[in-house]
Amino acid sequence: MHAAVTKKALTGALALLERIIPTRSSNPALLHVRVDAGEAGLRLSGTNLELDLECFVPAEVQFPESFTVPAHLFGQLVRSLGSELVTLSLEGSELHVHAGGTSLSLQTGDLQAHPALAFPNQADLSLDAAELARALGSVRYAASNEAFQAVFRGIKLEHHPGFARVVASDGYRVALRDFPVEGTGGRNLIIPARSVDELTRVLKDGQARFTYGEGMLTVTTEQIRMNLKLLDGEYPDYERVIPKDIRLQFTLPAVTLKEAVGRVAVLADKNANNRVEFMVSEGKLRLSAEGDYGRAQDTVEVQQGGREPAMSLAFNARHVLDALGPVEGDVTLRLSGASTPGILQPVDGSAYQAIIVTLRV
Amino acid sequence: MHAAVTKKALTGALALLERIIPTRSSNPALLHVRVDAGEAGLRLSGTNLELDLECFVPAEVQFPESFTVPAHLFGQLVRSLGSELVTLSLEGSELHVHAGGTSLSLQTGDLQAHPALAFPNQADLSLDAAELARALGSVRYAASNEAFQAVFRGIKLEHHPGFARVVASDGYRVALRDFPVEGTGGRNLIIPARSVDELTRVLKDGQARFTYGEGMLTVTTEQIRMNLKLLDGEYPDYERVIPKDIRLQFTLPAVTLKEAVGRVAVLADKNANNRVEFMVSEGKLRLSAEGDYGRAQDTVEVQQGGREPAMSLAFNARHVLDALGPVEGDVTLRLSGASTPGILQPVDGSAYQAIIVTLRV
Repeated sequence: MHAAVTKKALTGALALLERIIPTRSSNPALLHVRVDAGEAGLRLSGTNLELDLECFVPAEVQFPESFTVPAHLFGQLVRSLGSELVTLSLEGSELHVHAGGTSLSLQTGDLQAHPALAFPNQADLSLDAAELARALGSVRYAASNEAFQAVFRGIKLEHHPGFARVVASDGYRVALRDFPVEGTGGRNLIIPARSVDELTRVLKDGQARFTYGEGMLTVTTEQIRMNLKLLDGEYPDYERVIPKDIRLQFTLPAVTLKEAVGRVAVLADKNANNRVEFMVSEGKLRLSAEGDYGRAQDTVEVQQGGREPAMSLAFNARHVLDALGPVEGDVTLRLSGASTPGILQPVDGSAYQAIIVTLRV
Repeated sequence: MHAAVTKKALTGALALLERIIPTRSSNPALLHVRVDAGEAGLRLSGTNLELDLECFVPAEVQFPESFTVPAHLFGQLVRSLGSELVTLSLEGSELHVHAGGTSLSLQTGDLQAHPALAFPNQADLSLDAAELARALGSVRYAASNEAFQAVFRGIKLEHHPGFARVVASDGYRVALRDFPVEGTGGRNLIIPARSVDELTRVLKDGQARFTYGEGMLTVTTEQIRMNLKLLDGEYPDYERVIPKDIRLQFTLPAVTLKEAVGRVAVLADKNANNRVEFMVSEGKLRLSAEGDYGRAQDTVEVQQGGREPAMSLAFNARHVLDALGPVEGDVTLRLSGASTPGILQPVDGSAYQAIIVTLRV
């Protein structure tokens, strides 16, 4: 095997694969990246057994062959090269790397021991990659990181006529975002949040093609193919908790709310859910918090609406700050009472919504 | 006490103090910053018992008083404020902070329990603050972080006629840098490297005035006063290890050497001192390394000089990369043989030198 490739293309692919391929494992074969040299270029692949990733690297190849090398070492070496033009050649069990005045010889691994990864070719559905990535990125924060939380550790992807919805929740808050989808046949499924992090990273412009398998989703783009193991289970009926009867709402710049909540939260009691009181009346939002070290109070102007003249309730400051993360411009909080969740939504018309439980009085 | 102060000045001082003041301690008084409000402004001070720091913050003060507040909480609160004008007022045991629409009340600490810090006023010597900081910053890497290494955990400051020298070593390498000093009466002393890190951070332009105390150095600038506990002990005679008989030398851009050594070092054996072979002959430097995963070789052009036509020796790659840290432009390596240390020096005329032991053949 002999291949000529650019440093830029090779480092780009290895950077993605190094995020998936573990740095330690009881199975040393998993630490390797598999390289399949073909007519059109190199296909680099690796797995963490939850997620398989294959990246395509254009290259001029002679004598196509396959081999594996330690992924993180290979990545570090390729990044350190001083020349943009890199040649790879396989001689026996050694991979020779040449670039400028540099010559490297790397021991290759046992190709047979590397897990066989299969990426299906036909596509069942096609989504806009950037829209999907933006939607997943907006709701990711609300998913649980706790092992015992079952399906809450995943992000649900729902298909509706004309649009798709992603939903994340940890039982205390729900985040959702809709985006337009053409075509039908999309299945509802739950993707582990950690796999979603890797998926959003590889989604760029263009189309993301979905292929449905047994407990598995394959996503294909121009550059990559990714197999994601899906979570099994029933996702709770989150729509049930979204209040319909809005009695008071207020609007203000998201950054103003973020800074004011951030300030009073410093003195909020960490052992009492970072409790911050919200009091709305006469076009003003008064925030207050109290803890072991002192008290904080902040007043900001808001555009107030709804049939109730005033309302007092409390949120976990962390939930409010997280929910504001994906919001730019102005934000509206729609409230139904002190014991029902609040709805936080940008006024820019993006189909993002956060539903946050209130804390008990 | 009532004080009007800018957020910028207060956050600047607190950022420096938060680096010194511990976040946990068996003596809770140490977690507090002491504020002495006087006619001209606020003096903020704190200590980690190795290092005392006082920062001056200009303020309009009425009814001067002193108090303490939890340093890290106070820093976090002040940084979060949305207005540049901040007023502080002390009422009983509570400090009230007002800024824009924000009101905070903080419990103050026990003023009597806070350690009394004394900063002498007279100065014994005056140094250029920026020169001192640059010199200390250049050699810091060579000091040891190992508790058992006694004086090697410190940086030595030597006074010679017309110049001062800072020296750091861990027994395997020495780094030194000279800088001009006017005036006499400077004492040789050893400052703990961790205190040097804080000192270099607070030294800006202008003069650093030294006051010598009992096992203690006080450094005073326009903005700060710092007491540094000194290390006791005899610093080894490092000049003894600097080779005088240079038999071969070569010069190349520092960045070229850094990148080439960095590349081959990836494959060097971590359990064999990151050994990298240097072979110089005919205007070329050939670097090579070998480890469990493979071999690396790199060739770069150099300007070669000296009476020997060729030389082969080995260094710890980490030592060479560290020594190159403070070097810009071209660098010269002066060699005396395979078993004597090498001298690395920038050709820009800055008085920095690194002396590095060679590894056994």
